[in-house]
Amino acid sequence: MGTTFTELDPIFHPRSAALIGASGKPGKIGRVLMDRFLDMGFRDLYPVNPSEREILGIKAYPSVKDIPAPVDLALIVTPTNAVLPAVKDCAEKGVRAIVITSSGFGETGEKGLELEREMVRIARLGGCRIIGPNCVGIYSPSSRLPFPLDAGKESGKVGVVSQSGFFADYLTLAASRNGIGFSKAVSCGNEADLDASDFLGYLGEDPETELIVAYMEGARDGRRFHALAREISMRKPVILLKGGTTQEGAQAAASHTGSLAGSGAIWEGVLRQTGIVSAKSFEEVLDCLYAFSCQPLPKGRRVGIVSGPGGIGVCTTDACLGLGLEVPPFSPQTLARLRRAMPVVGGSIRNPLDLSLASLVNPQVYADAISILLEEENIDMLLVVAVIGGEQLRDILLKGLGDGGGKKPVAVTIMAGGPQSVAGDIALLLKSSIAAYPDGARAARALARLSEFAEFKRGFQGNQ
Amino acid sequence: MGTTFTELDPIFHPRSAALIGASGKPGKIGRVLMDRFLDMGFRDLYPVNPSEREILGIKAYPSVKDIPAPVDLALIVTPTNAVLPAVKDCAEKGVRAIVITSSGFGETGEKGLELEREMVRIARLGGCRIIGPNCVGIYSPSSRLPFPLDAGKESGKVGVVSQSGFFADYLTLAASRNGIGFSKAVSCGNEADLDASDFLGYLGEDPETELIVAYMEGARDGRRFHALAREISMRKPVILLKGGTTQEGAQAAASHTGSLAGSGAIWEGVLRQTGIVSAKSFEEVLDCLYAFSCQPLPKGRRVGIVSGPGGIGVCTTDACLGLGLEVPPFSPQTLARLRRAMPVVGGSIRNPLDLSLASLVNPQVYADAISILLEEENIDMLLVVAVIGGEQLRDILLKGLGDGGGKKPVAVTIMAGGPQSVAGDIALLLKSSIAAYPDGARAARALARLSEFAEFKRGFQGNQ
Repeated sequence: MGTTFTELDPIFHPRSAALIGASGKPGKIGRVLMDRFLDMGFRDLYPVNPSEREILGIKAYPSVKDIPAPVDLALIVTPTNAVLPAVKDCAEKGVRAIVITSSGFGETGEKGLELEREMVRIARLGGCRIIGPNCVGIYSPSSRLPFPLDAGKESGKVGVVSQSGFFADYLTLAASRNGIGFSKAVSCGNEADLDASDFLGYLGEDPETELIVAYMEGARDGRRFHALAREISMRKPVILLKGGTTQEGAQAAASHTGSLAGSGAIWEGVLRQTGIVSAKSFEEVLDCLYAFSCQPLPKGRRVGIVSGPGGIGVCTTDACLGLGLEVPPFSPQTLARLRRAMPVVGGSIRNPLDLSLASLVNPQVYADAISILLEEENIDMLLVVAVIGGEQLRDILLKGLGDGGGKKPVAVTIMAGGPQSVAGDIALLLKSSIAAYPDGARAARALARLSEFAEFKRGFQGNQ
Repeated sequence: MGTTFTELDPIFHPRSAALIGASGKPGKIGRVLMDRFLDMGFRDLYPVNPSEREILGIKAYPSVKDIPAPVDLALIVTPTNAVLPAVKDCAEKGVRAIVITSSGFGETGEKGLELEREMVRIARLGGCRIIGPNCVGIYSPSSRLPFPLDAGKESGKVGVVSQSGFFADYLTLAASRNGIGFSKAVSCGNEADLDASDFLGYLGEDPETELIVAYMEGARDGRRFHALAREISMRKPVILLKGGTTQEGAQAAASHTGSLAGSGAIWEGVLRQTGIVSAKSFEEVLDCLYAFSCQPLPKGRRVGIVSGPGGIGVCTTDACLGLGLEVPPFSPQTLARLRRAMPVVGGSIRNPLDLSLASLVNPQVYADAISILLEEENIDMLLVVAVIGGEQLRDILLKGLGDGGGKKPVAVTIMAGGPQSVAGDIALLLKSSIAAYPDGARAARALARLSEFAEFKRGFQGNQ
């Protein structure tokens, strides 16, 4: 039984919110969220705490029922044993949706599960939906709804649904530091009521969301998830990290969110059939996100490699081939154009194009190579290994991309200045919509994922 | 036919050096190296350039033969056609070793190969050895011999041999930014005379080198390389990135350094049999280097995972299992100790140990968990996923490690503050000899490599 877009959309756009368990004491989650709501500029916030009359300058209420205005969303961040009474109050108050961050429920066993069922029963009587418990709730920058970590106020086009609170929270923080904006993010925790599939369906229909990132340990209804994932993937990419693919991981997942992780082999099949972009680690999720958020889909799997360092060009070629990509020869016309534009000594005019360390002395060769290869018909995407960084690299790349930047996906590897300098340069390039990586193999993997997803979409369109 | 330690050692310890093709003009390699020699504080440097009388305040000579003192090492950085005459001059002068950075030789075809043979013939007549051509030469911080990039003046225990100049040059720069020091690094380019196996043998015997990093596209003498690699691996780890494992990569390697990359399958076998630590990308080389440079070898493959975020603990467990590591249950004694020391709500006292987001509020739980698990007999190594960073994380880790830091390898994943902040924190931790990574899967991979190498060593000792 699914939920509709219209049912869920108001949850991400509350006009007023109560923070039940609000606190002024540093170190408390009730204080962290007070600070974050204020920082985001959320207007109608009502702190609830029976022992306080005012928190950080805002009037506090003993109970949600004492608030003299309608409350669209309540966040319950109290100790476990105070949650059920707070849910009752919310239902009586007519709150539309409740986020429960508190843990100690279904993930601890049957008694906790029973408590969850009771909460849901009470909430439903009042027409109220529950997100959580054991989650970090909702980040909706256009409505100024914050996560505990600071992912910024800017909206974007990436939606997140996660059974891990930290995954959603840290992902939005980490990616936002690199210039990626989010439409909304939701951590659904133990899924006592609303589950990951509900939110996946919502984000699939959400016009503000063009790309979805998900962390899942299990799906309550496997068939429904399968159908949803396939249907959404036809319209927008879903990048998924599946937790609990091994027996030991699945056991850990059970005590993490109480979810049944299901067999790794069955999930492998589901991921293949649905067009889902399957990532194997948190870092790979970010790598895919960077490529999918700013690059077009390739028309085929043929990569043109432009490398300053020859050895790294060799290894990156190996990495592409290992991922099922092709590194084919350039056409005679392109070879002729490259030969006219490039220095000859020490380099090599072929694919991978070895610019040699002449690229350090005259980095303009990167721009020339990129603009020539964007027009090469034997090549569907570009992988550039740069030995310069900073604004110099950005400007040269933008010059090379010219108006053709949207024609073929481009992934850039930065090898200049050392790891800290590279981390800064990656942010700089992403903010100019250039997908950048610290390693050729990671740039290759991101291109491979773009190419696999493009093939899924073509296969679907071919079948229509 | 091998070379002996005594033959090669003087090359890394020249008392005087001539820079043939030295220049004062910015952008020229002859200028870059002048700057670098001066910056390193190399004393007896003789610039050679027929058109200059003085370069950057140092007297220049028309030819190496005009230098009024013995010259131990000559670096030839001239255009291709000026190399052979310079080699002749060096041989006549009695120079002991020549580094030729210039390219345009064997990697361009038969004519270039012929030129290389002629250079070697002439050099050998004068008792002189050649490194290169088409290389960046030698970095030997204890002798103040620089690479073109600035990897610093501090000596360390890591030796590098590379058929890619950029690999050696950028690796030493990137790792030195994270606090890793090098004994010596050599880029051997086209290997007209001395080859990677010669230098591998040298570093294997070098008492200053405790750990070797190598980039190779091919071995001139496969049998010799196989025997050497196996023999050295018994004493010190060799981390190797093999370029040209695919047909397309091998073709690129041929035009990069003229080397024959050999079949990928044969190399796979060699890497397995020799105990070599095989890395698949530049980043993986660095990741392995960080673990091998500061962590002890594990006694088995059992990992204890300590994670703040539950979902990341689940994924990291999956990653460990996927790499052939084990994540076994803790012993009853350890469970009891953990239960006494840890908060209960929202976390989980098992392996992976889920500290929950309580670890954000009270990060001391990391120190407690680490010190307890260092004493757990069911666990051979630790993987910690931290949600705090900076000096706070460093101090807590050092407290947890206490005197037991050398007992078991520990790899830390930092997920705090975003990518740029993490890059800085990794450097901070490495400088305190703590191996740190931005992703759980990469920390797991580094531990897997430590464990595989430890098994190779135990197998060898068992066979004795």
